[in-house]
Parts: sequence; structure tokens; C-alpha cells
Amino acid sequence: MSENKWPTAVTEVLPNRIMNRGYLVDELMGRTTFAQAIYLVLKGELPSPEVGRLLDAIFVSSVDHGASPPSVLTARTVASTGAELNAAVAAGVLAISRLHGGAIEEGQRLFLEIARRADSAGGDEDQAARDVLAEMKAKGKRASGYGHRLHTKDPRTTKLFALADTLHLAGRCVRIARRVEALLAEDLGRPLPINVDGAIAAVLCDLGIPPEIGNAFFIIARVPGLVAHVHEEKTRMKPMRKVDPEGYIYDGPPERKLP
Amino acid sequence: MSENKWPTAVTEVLPNRIMNRGYLVDELMGRTTFAQAIYLVLKGELPSPEVGRLLDAIFVSSVDHGASPPSVLTARTVASTGAELNAAVAAGVLAISRLHGGAIEEGQRLFLEIARRADSAGGDEDQAARDVLAEMKAKGKRASGYGHRLHTKDPRTTKLFALADTLHLAGRCVRIARRVEALLAEDLGRPLPINVDGAIAAVLCDLGIPPEIGNAFFIIARVPGLVAHVHEEKTRMKPMRKVDPEGYIYDGPPERKLP
Amino acid sequence: MSENKWPTAVTEVLPNRIMNRGYLVDELMGRTTFAQAIYLVLKGELPSPEVGRLLDAIFVSSVDHGASPPSVLTARTVASTGAELNAAVAAGVLAISRLHGGAIEEGQRLFLEIARRADSAGGDEDQAARDVLAEMKAKGKRASGYGHRLHTKDPRTTKLFALADTLHLAGRCVRIARRVEALLAEDLGRPLPINVDGAIAAVLCDLGIPPEIGNAFFIIARVPGLVAHVHEEKTRMKPMRKVDPEGYIYDGPPERKLP
Amino acid sequence: MSENKWPTAVTEVLPNRIMNRGYLVDELMGRTTFAQAIYLVLKGELPSPEVGRLLDAIFVSSVDHGASPPSVLTARTVASTGAELNAAVAAGVLAISRLHGGAIEEGQRLFLEIARRADSAGGDEDQAARDVLAEMKAKGKRASGYGHRLHTKDPRTTKLFALADTLHLAGRCVRIARRVEALLAEDLGRPLPINVDGAIAAVLCDLGIPPEIGNAFFIIARVPGLVAHVHEEKTRMKPMRKVDPEGYIYDGPPERKLP
Repeated sequence: MSENKWPTAVTEVLPNRIMNRGYLVDELMGRTTFAQAIYLVLKGELPSPEVGRLLDAIFVSSVDHGASPPSVLTARTVASTGAELNAAVAAGVLAISRLHGGAIEEGQRLFLEIARRADSAGGDEDQAARDVLAEMKAKGKRASGYGHRLHTKDPRTTKLFALADTLHLAGRCVRIARRVEALLAEDLGRPLPINVDGAIAAVLCDLGIPPEIGNAFFIIARVPGLVAHVHEEKTRMKPMRKVDPEGYIYDGPPERKLP
Repeated sequence: MSENKWPTAVTEVLPNRIMNRGYLVDELMGRTTFAQAIYLVLKGELPSPEVGRLLDAIFVSSVDHGASPPSVLTARTVASTGAELNAAVAAGVLAISRLHGGAIEEGQRLFLEIARRADSAGGDEDQAARDVLAEMKAKGKRASGYGHRLHTKDPRTTKLFALADTLHLAGRCVRIARRVEALLAEDLGRPLPINVDGAIAAVLCDLGIPPEIGNAFFIIARVPGLVAHVHEEKTRMKPMRKVDPEGYIYDGPPERKLP
Repeated sequence: MSENKWPTAVTEVLPNRIMNRGYLVDELMGRTTFAQAIYLVLKGELPSPEVGRLLDAIFVSSVDHGASPPSVLTARTVASTGAELNAAVAAGVLAISRLHGGAIEEGQRLFLEIARRADSAGGDEDQAARDVLAEMKAKGKRASGYGHRLHTKDPRTTKLFALADTLHLAGRCVRIARRVEALLAEDLGRPLPINVDGAIAAVLCDLGIPPEIGNAFFIIARVPGLVAHVHEEKTRMKPMRKVDPEGYIYDGPPERKLP
Repeated sequence: MSENKWPTAVTEVLPNRIMNRGYLVDELMGRTTFAQAIYLVLKGELPSPEVGRLLDAIFVSSVDHGASPPSVLTARTVASTGAELNAAVAAGVLAISRLHGGAIEEGQRLFLEIARRADSAGGDEDQAARDVLAEMKAKGKRASGYGHRLHTKDPRTTKLFALADTLHLAGRCVRIARRVEALLAEDLGRPLPINVDGAIAAVLCDLGIPPEIGNAFFIIARVPGLVAHVHEEKTRMKPMRKVDPEGYIYDGPPERKLP
């Protein structure tokens, strides 16, 4: 009896017919990109081509950031013990946690809270942002999604916002994110620029992605990078080596231009 | 000293400059799809637009297959205990193992072995396939990538091979895969059609992807599906429920046409 | 230079000399039980023989609880895909989360909060317990560690408290835990007995174990149970079966008496 | 109907009655050690007190080996990102793989193969060991369980074998393990002593533990050590630090004698 069955709205599987959110997978294949299909399974609807392009940019921005992130060091350390590829990747995913990747969800919550405050106070986003930041400061909490140990002007942020502008997809949250950036600089007396997590948070907010799955966009984007590092570890490195988190050097292709 | 440093060729990270395999990530953003960027970090080179389209189709084919795969049941069970999103996804990835997703790597090895045998015996792929299958049968081993408990004619296989043909990317391994399908039918007296894992295996072979990372394509494709199920579990289901592996019902949108 | 090194106080490893918290491991072997060594590495000091016995009872109480807990279903589902033993166990550990095993930490925090309130108000534990429970009720929060879907009088609780009494190790937290049980019954008009998690929480509190590692006692206890189930899955069950969370039957030895 | 149910022989759970392998858990509590209960759930029978003592020694031997093993570095790196305790421990377990902990299973298989060969050839263990080692050498395979990067005379091996002798539990596999040690020394012209993995492998063989779960004894033993390191990481270290695999220093209690 269907009353006793538990429901799922993601995919219907019948003999020789597989429908993701109602669309036949074989019709999706060849007509939608992977990024569009990701949005489809997560949100339930197909994105417009413009949203699809922005999603591609989000995923491309985070596909890999070298050997130093803890998720990569974890995946490599596990791979180095002779573990299977999936186990090494899973261990890496376990390191994509509150302080690594987690800024997306927290950034989204910050921007949404400022928007909510503005709404309930006549729409003044600047004042709402000032209030929320002041409260966070009083509690000793830092704004997630701002500042980077290495990048003073993160090229991924610049490009992502530029694309969102060009595609007419930058909305209220991107505006709030920029406002917060200005207020933080004012307060600190020095710039604390939006980092890539903050930029992704702002764009995902404007795309209507709930904060609960904000970090998932980072996980999805970075899994291929983890695979690349695990494969490199297994093919180039000595098993059971000590994976020094700072003692590596890049020896891949020199900078090159896109064709 | 650089002599003491360990090498990595995936990504170079400098202040405000991030290069994946030599390409500035902010140049990749907006110009390459996620699927192309995945190929880039895994293979080291940008794929042609045609290869990019075929990769998108591979990933789209496997983004989700409903609630019954063990990876989904695992991720939902873990999510049901109140675990974080990344922990539930990681547990799901641990279930993408030898018997679930693993057919891609094994299929690739089968096709490559047949190709190798054919090469060393004057190029007769039919004879090589017959020999390899006979040896497997003698050892009681089944060919990976053929047959499906539900789909007698997997629509994903049909579409993937059709796309590979149209894009002029179907090569020797796709041909061998079809030969194996014919020989299995001949031997069994009934069809044992190529399933989606076998089709992906054949196409990845022809794209020059080594078998060691064949399963990674399934992992990468399915992580978004796992996220969708974990999110659904957390938002629609009672915590600590029993996740019955067969007692579910699809209640999403009815079948609909692509716009 | 030692100034640049990061410190660890758990174990010193020198050639042919291994010291856990200062004790040579080969001196510990044969003279301390596993339970005592666990306490040593976690707390930094050797427990008395009485504490050692109580720890053994805690671990024995939670070594296994049949096939229905989500950690077991997770580990079996992963094992069923052909995964390695350690991957299946790790997946099971990921399911030992907030709602499964997590009641130990939450119970400890509850008892410690009541103790703190009593201290700051002249020592009246009954009043402190009433206040804390009333506040939780007002927030719609349930007391962790009370009630069980199956056991109305959990034999593990009874035995653990009896042992703690006999060994003169039951202290303030066990007293508070019993007080809370009485107040909950008074408030609900029916008994809501301390479950095994609540009992372990009370005893760990009295042993000075911080709540942050309370759940670890459950994880440590249950890992052997997970191994037993994974091994059974791999040796008795068909690969890739559907692990029905309720459709199992016990077919081991009938009840028997200890020798 | 019971015919459709899947069987499990580990634990029977009835209201207020929990039986591990037929024994009431509340009778086990207070009368058996954790080590004995582990053996019970894994093997199905209660061990003798002597076997219990030897199991305690096995688990104590492996409870922790400092900060350098990959499982510890993995667990600490994951903990450093703000992950939950169970996620960090699970990641550590994923690193207990073929090359780290895996020597127990492989050692057991080696000793059992030598025993099997000896049986089928009139009982000459020395000749069987020579044959097996020669075959391994011809294939370029090393004997698992011998040699250690740091310990030339592992105190854990010495103590474990001494206890096994004293308790009259050292049997054929311990004898074979020593024979292999002598033959390796003869062949190499220098000692390659049995390490703790090899010693545990030999003792587990003599206790009738199947090799499939040999590594589980290491996993079970080391989980408490992982917890200790994760707790130390969370309480003493800065979040998101680089966990240098060699740059640590022990700052715990100096060597001390057991009371």
C-alpha cells in the first residue's frame, strides 16, 4: 500500500525509464550540462541557460586549490596507506566541514539575515547590515566569507560577480555582500575583501539555493579535485610517505592561455 | 630547498593567481563547463568541445537513480541520525565500491585487455574477445558492465553510444563493447545488454581515461544525487526512521518534456 | 627547534620504547585491561581497579544491540557493496551521531548544568533540576537519556547503577540522574526511565570524563559490534542485497548462563 | 514470516532482554571485561580468562603509537576543520588500510599458508616456510609483519610472545612466526624482527581468529587512541592549522613506573 511507503521526489525509476524530477534522463543527456542537472536534482527545476552558465562558473571556481587544503591532505594521507579511491575521497569530504567550505552556508545565513532585517525595518539594507555586524562584533563573531590568508583580491570573486552582473543574475544578496565588504573595511580601517566562499554564498542566495545545501556546492565542486590528488598520490608518490602540508612544489605546466 | 619538496602538477596557487593545470581559474570560469574542468584536473589537458559534451552526458546519465542504490540508502540512514551533510555524503561515497559503481573500472580493464590481445595477435578483435570471455567463463567470472536487474534496454546506454557516434568519439572500445555484447548473447542464448556502467567504461576508454579513475566518474556524478537525497531526508523525513530499502514511492513531478 | 614543534601529550615513541602517558606500553601489557588503557589515553592517568571494572561494564553494556541501530544498517549496507572492512566500519561510525549515541554527551551536559545551578543556589539539587527541566520544557526540548522505544526497564541501566553503587563510584551525577527520572515521571504522570545512554552519561560524569568525549565511549564500545555485523554480512549474506531494517531474525545461540 | 527474514546471530533484542550471543548483557556486565566481550561478539563464544588476558594485552599494545601514524594525522586534520568527533575518528579509520594495520591480516595468511603447506607435506614447517618465502621472494613480495622503521626490537612483540608463552596460548603460528623470523635473518644476513603486527597476527592465528577480521583487532585497539588525539587537537590546537607529520614534540608526563 502506498500509504505505508516513504516518499521521494528526486528520481522515478521504471524499467527502461528513468526520470530525474520528471525529465527522462536520456532526454537530459546531450541537452543539459552536468551543472544544470545538478541544479535540477537539488532544486527540482531546470535552470535557465544563464543560471546554468553561472553554476558552471561556481563549480569551476572551486574544482581545486592546490595541495594545501585539509581535504586534500586528508585524502592524500588516506590514499598513501593503500586505501581505495572512494575511501580516500570520502575521508577528504569529511574534512570539508565548518571551517573548510563551511563559510558558504554561514555567509548565506548572514546575507539572508540582513535581508530579513531590512525587510522588517522598511528596507534599509545598510542599516540592517550595520546592526547585524555590530551584534556579531559584540559577540566576538567574525563575518564568514571575508578575508583570505593568501589572496588579497581573490580572482574568483571578481570573475564570479562579473559573470553574475553580465548574466543579470546578481541580485539583492550580491548587493548586500558588497555592502558588508564596505562596512567591514570601514570598521577595520583596512580592506577585508569577499573571498570565494562569500561570493559563492551571495550568488547562491540570489539563485534561491537554501543555506542548508550551500556547502554541498563546494563539496560537489571539490570532489574532482580530490580525485586528481588521490590519483596523483597513488601514481607519483611513495606509499606511506609523510604528507608534509607545506613542503610541496608545483611542477605542472607553466601558465598558459586558453585556446 | 625544492629538492626536498614533494611535487604536485594539479594546481599552482600564488597570491591572487590560481592556475589549474596552467590555466588561470578566472579565465576558465565562464568559458569552460564544470565537466570540462573536471577533465582538465584529471587528465591535465582541456577537452575539445565535443569531448566536453560527451562528458556532460556521462555525468548527467549517472547523477541519480532513485532511492534504492546502497549509496543512497547509506547516506539517508546516516543523515537520519542527525549527522552533518558532508558526513552523510561521505558515508554514501563509501558504498560506491566494487559492486556498486565498480563495474566501470572493471569494464575498462576488460575492453583494454581485449584490445591488447587483439594487438598482439594481428588485430582480430572478435577472436580476442572470444578468448578473453572464454577464459573468464572458465574461471567463473562474469563480464562487468552487462545486464541490469531492472533495465532490459538501458536508455542511458543507447543515448550515450548515440552521442559518442554523433560526436565522432566512439572508437575501438565502444566497438569492442558491442562485440562483447553480441558474443554474450550468442553464448547465453539471450540478450545481456550493455548497462550504463559498461557504456561509460567503453566511452571513457576511448577518451583515454585510465581505468584507475574510471569509478571516479561515477562518484563525481552521483555526489549531487546523494546531496539531493540527504537534503530530502533532512527536510521531509522523521529523524531516526527506519530507511526501508524497498518501501518508497516516487511523489515528484510527473513525466514532462524538456522545454 | 622544539619551539616550532606542536605538542602532544598522549604517547612518546622512541626507538624500542613506547610510553602511553608516561607508562611503557610493555609494562601496561599484561597488567592493565583494555578498558584501563582506554581511560589512560583519554584522561591521562591510570584508573583505580574499581574504575577499571566500571569502565569494562560501560563498554560491555554497549558492545552490540542487534541489527536495527542505524550504525549497523549503514555498516552492513556498505559491506554489502564489496567495500573493505575498515570502510564499512567507518561508515557505521558516521551514523553514531547526534540522535544515535549522542545522548551521552547531552545527558552529561544536563547533569552538569543541574549541578552547576545547585552549586550557585546553595546546593538544592531538586530545585535546580526542576528549574532546568522547566526551562527545557518551555523551549520544547526533551531531556536526553530518558525513555526507550523498546525497553521500559533497561537492564543495562539497572546493572550499571548497581555496579556503580557497589564499587562506591556513584556520586552526584548518578543522584541527579535519578532525581531527573523522578521529576520526569511526576511531570508526565508515567515513568520515563533512564536509558543506557543516560546511565552511562551519569556514570561518566561521576568519573570526571568531560562531555566532549562522552559519545566516544559509545563509539569505542560499538566498533566491535560493527565489526561483528560486517563480518557476518560478508560471510553469510548475498552481496548487494537490500538490507531491510526490520526484516531480520535472530538465529544465534539460545539464551544461556554464564559459566 | 520468518522465511523471508534475514538472519543475524550476534545479538537478540527483546523488551528488557538483550542477549549477546545468547548471554544476557546485564549478566556479562561486571563479570566480563571489554576484551572478553569483544571476543564474544566476534567469535561467538566467551574466551577463557587466559585468552581474555591475552586479548587485553593485544589491545593495550596497539591503543596508541604517537602522532605519526597516518590514521592519527588524518583524524587530527579532519578535527582541525571543526568536524564532529565521530567524523574525525571515521576518517582515521579509513587510513587503517592495507599498508597501515593491514599487516595483521597478511601476516595471518602467511602463517596459515605455511601451516597448510606443512600439513600437506608431512608436517615439515621449516621446509614449508622456506618454500613459501622463496616463492614470495621470486614474486618480489615482502613478508608482512617483519621489520619496523624505528623499532629494532619491538617491546610489544617481546611482551606479547612472553605472555602467550606464560599463558600456554602460544601455538603453531607463533612457532611459525619465529621460524620465519629466523629464515629472513638467514636470507638477509641481518635481523628483520617480527613487528607488533606480525606478533598480533601469530597470536590471533593461534586463538582461531580468521584473517578476514585480523585488522579489526587493530582498528578496535586504535579507535581510543584516535579519540585521544582528536580531543587533544580540539582542545589544545588552533583550528585549521597545518598538521606537520613530523614536527611534533611529546610534552606529556615523563616516564613513570606502574603503581
